[in-house]
Amino acid sequence: MALPPGVGQADFDAALTAFADIVGSDWVFSDEASVATYRDAYSPSRGEGDEKVASAAVSPTTVEQIQQILAVANRYSIPLYTISTGRNLAYGGSAPVYSGSVVLDLKRMNRILEVNEDMAFAVVEPGVSYFDLYRHIRERGMKLWIDCPDPGWGSLIGNALDRGAGRTPMPYRDHFGAHCGMEVVLANGDLVRTGLGAIPNSGANWQAFPYGAGPLADGLFAQSNLGIVTKMGFWLLPEPDATMTGTIRAQRHDDIIPLVRTITHLQYQGIVNCLYSFNSPVFEGAINERMAALLDRPNGGSAAEWDAYASSLGRNFWQTTLRFYGPLNVMQAQWAYVKERLAAIDGIEFADGDVMEFPLTDDQISRLGDPASFGVPSLSVFSSQAGSGGHIDASPMVPHSGEAVLKAHKVYMREYVAADMPPSLGFAMSYHQRAFIMFHGIVLTLDPAENAKARAFYKRLVEVSGENGWGIYRAHAAYMDEVMATYSFNDGALGRLNNTLKDALDPNGILSAGRYGIWPKHLRGSRA
Amino acid sequence: MALPPGVGQADFDAALTAFADIVGSDWVFSDEASVATYRDAYSPSRGEGDEKVASAAVSPTTVEQIQQILAVANRYSIPLYTISTGRNLAYGGSAPVYSGSVVLDLKRMNRILEVNEDMAFAVVEPGVSYFDLYRHIRERGMKLWIDCPDPGWGSLIGNALDRGAGRTPMPYRDHFGAHCGMEVVLANGDLVRTGLGAIPNSGANWQAFPYGAGPLADGLFAQSNLGIVTKMGFWLLPEPDATMTGTIRAQRHDDIIPLVRTITHLQYQGIVNCLYSFNSPVFEGAINERMAALLDRPNGGSAAEWDAYASSLGRNFWQTTLRFYGPLNVMQAQWAYVKERLAAIDGIEFADGDVMEFPLTDDQISRLGDPASFGVPSLSVFSSQAGSGGHIDASPMVPHSGEAVLKAHKVYMREYVAADMPPSLGFAMSYHQRAFIMFHGIVLTLDPAENAKARAFYKRLVEVSGENGWGIYRAHAAYMDEVMATYSFNDGALGRLNNTLKDALDPNGILSAGRYGIWPKHLRGSRA
Repeated sequence: MALPPGVGQADFDAALTAFADIVGSDWVFSDEASVATYRDAYSPSRGEGDEKVASAAVSPTTVEQIQQILAVANRYSIPLYTISTGRNLAYGGSAPVYSGSVVLDLKRMNRILEVNEDMAFAVVEPGVSYFDLYRHIRERGMKLWIDCPDPGWGSLIGNALDRGAGRTPMPYRDHFGAHCGMEVVLANGDLVRTGLGAIPNSGANWQAFPYGAGPLADGLFAQSNLGIVTKMGFWLLPEPDATMTGTIRAQRHDDIIPLVRTITHLQYQGIVNCLYSFNSPVFEGAINERMAALLDRPNGGSAAEWDAYASSLGRNFWQTTLRFYGPLNVMQAQWAYVKERLAAIDGIEFADGDVMEFPLTDDQISRLGDPASFGVPSLSVFSSQAGSGGHIDASPMVPHSGEAVLKAHKVYMREYVAADMPPSLGFAMSYHQRAFIMFHGIVLTLDPAENAKARAFYKRLVEVSGENGWGIYRAHAAYMDEVMATYSFNDGALGRLNNTLKDALDPNGILSAGRYGIWPKHLRGSRA
Repeated sequence: MALPPGVGQADFDAALTAFADIVGSDWVFSDEASVATYRDAYSPSRGEGDEKVASAAVSPTTVEQIQQILAVANRYSIPLYTISTGRNLAYGGSAPVYSGSVVLDLKRMNRILEVNEDMAFAVVEPGVSYFDLYRHIRERGMKLWIDCPDPGWGSLIGNALDRGAGRTPMPYRDHFGAHCGMEVVLANGDLVRTGLGAIPNSGANWQAFPYGAGPLADGLFAQSNLGIVTKMGFWLLPEPDATMTGTIRAQRHDDIIPLVRTITHLQYQGIVNCLYSFNSPVFEGAINERMAALLDRPNGGSAAEWDAYASSLGRNFWQTTLRFYGPLNVMQAQWAYVKERLAAIDGIEFADGDVMEFPLTDDQISRLGDPASFGVPSLSVFSSQAGSGGHIDASPMVPHSGEAVLKAHKVYMREYVAADMPPSLGFAMSYHQRAFIMFHGIVLTLDPAENAKARAFYKRLVEVSGENGWGIYRAHAAYMDEVMATYSFNDGALGRLNNTLKDALDPNGILSAGRYGIWPKHLRGSRA
């Protein structure tokens, strides 16, 4: 049995015994096979010396049990690593950032505490998955949609706390942004409710207004290790009448500039409110020799040079599909206005998509190509990945500007060429209100040499993103220090603030050491 | 010259001399007349012994000067009270919560650092007013709207940090919610940038993505005293094509239930996105004897009893006006859909309003009855208040439910009757995404006896709001302890968390003591 670093065998045994007294011996895991289930299925260091692994796991069912576990962990200085359901694949899965931590696995806290159809919200515990909430709503015939990430087996709370995103309209697509109200157990065992939840008897009002009064601490518990979230409210979308799509194709390299400016302005006005992605039939896929030569030109090739290349292939440069949700007449007026506003772009083409009315039948749902756009959780994203070693994801944020999108494509493509890596660059995707994700899914294999190359490239992407001000919004557990090191303004003032908060809220440093670069005081020196 | 409590004359003199060395002697105010300009023009205790007053004021122009002032304040234990422009009338104005504090007046930090038309955002310092930013944009002919509260002379940063709201679409109407990126000086002088601002060279990307990576501290600096905000970014609305209104009248008491359910669901879907208010020609104005008798009935009078009363007056029970913004065809389709969805309510009436196209001419702007709905700052709200002693505002949040709106009206009207106070209850107003403000503007006079009654009534409103779970979202400086005391879940766990954060971030307790109920450690005991 592995020990947490710095913890002696006797103390560890005493802690595990105490944990068993709290949750029952069936829910403390310390045998090798059970602990191995917490390994990261997509670890970039699988089977190598630096793979992050747990020493044990404990799985409570109540807030009171968590409070008791914290008392034990504080007494014996046991590092805990909290997971909700541990499905954070491509960002570290269920393995602790600080190897040797005891996983605090909240999967058994899986109660759906409320779904309110009139007020369109849900309150859940950390173990509730998107599948669970979806089934609950559909079985009752409630006219509400959830918003889920591509794989639907994860936890609503876990995903929101890692600031995950989905595919339905805003604000629902931004899982942290669409939360309202938190219950948090602090490291000292104190139980706090934020917003109107701090008023006894606030009832459904807890999910009606997120701010409450005074400072709002909710932001401290996302992408961090400052507390254990045990309940969260989420706003839900009342089922729309219908949906339809419209596809836009633009011919030239520089068309992305008016295209981004116009579509984002329509988004900021509420006329467009879907997830859209600026794809490029020219940039996408493998980088051939002609492309590599263009990328080597000043500024990664001029508009005229790229347009000539695109012409020689007979390809248009950019395209995007907008999905509208709502009453048919409103959607049609919105799409007509999008066309009108973009008509001045020479050669632009539009194609009207199909209309679908809601609710969908079970048969229609089973045939959806893109279920997450309809609030339907699935695991279909995994169907294309069978047999691989998974991937590690880097997600830099690029501003809503065509110039920035062009620059980012060229900068990142040059990096793929220089590192001789197969491109896995996603195009500018509008998951968030005012920035694109330029997503990289670096493929892993079962070959350690290949994986070492992938790891080096991931670090290089983090570095290049930081140099260009394209902050990584979500870090892989193995590279959190590297990502947070790019947030270096004023000699690391943000990190100093995070450390001050850590020392105040978790003075013994027992919670999720290392998460998002925040280490407890006793481990900070050795990391600096 | 008054002294801050607990500070000796020699230390205070030394501190003021040091402040003068930093900002110049013209910008340190300690003479009676100058200090009196920081009195709250709407103080509920004007001229009485417990009126909150400053001891002095200091007004820096740069972050470096703030850092130097903080060093002096830490050295001599001088309590500072930060204001941006000090226009927080009806919530305490520019007077400190802790009487005797030195006002740290940021009005001279008034640079508009950036207005980006393509990306539709602004970055400002605390001294920039809504008028300043509006004029800057209009002079340059930029097609951007600001969102301003009713009086336009206040600070964008000050209003957002007190979680103020305006009248254009969401998210812009929620001033804290529409911010993106902060620069904050901590009490120890450290300078932090949040979000992507923590990445050097992030440029315009700072205003593109609010979260950055790791925990987000922005919420800690609103309605608090945990730092001094020196820069903030705000998202702006690209100028819409046009606007039109539609008015809805419903006949009966219980019509509010489907009315709220339907209109809020349309809002949650993005089909309605304006400020609307459920007004009642029956409830509004003076409470006569017949109304008082109904309020005394079980549950404040049944639907049938109130409907009979409304009939006898020949009045409809509810009405609201929706304002649409956008392309004409989209607005018309949205309004048509609203009518379709509400048609089932027996006796419902609709009236189409006028269409106005943007941009407006100067002449059109000068004739607007409701300039804030067009992003135009004004002081017209004061025209109805000349000669009064002002008012103190209480703003409880009531959930989006017709039942809750009915209950809140009756509960609050009963309180006005019981206290023999003239009703000053605003109707359910949708400033925020998922809750109504039931606003109370308690009128003050120049008569201390009347004001004592107003103060007692304000406290009673805070108490009743707390009992019903209708949290006050914004507290008057004189009653912050009372408001925060209603946030009492788990024996005041939220207050304990706030105190922990205060002690960590401002160990000497020099920043804005008492703001939103947060007192430094050395003053906490005497307040408990």
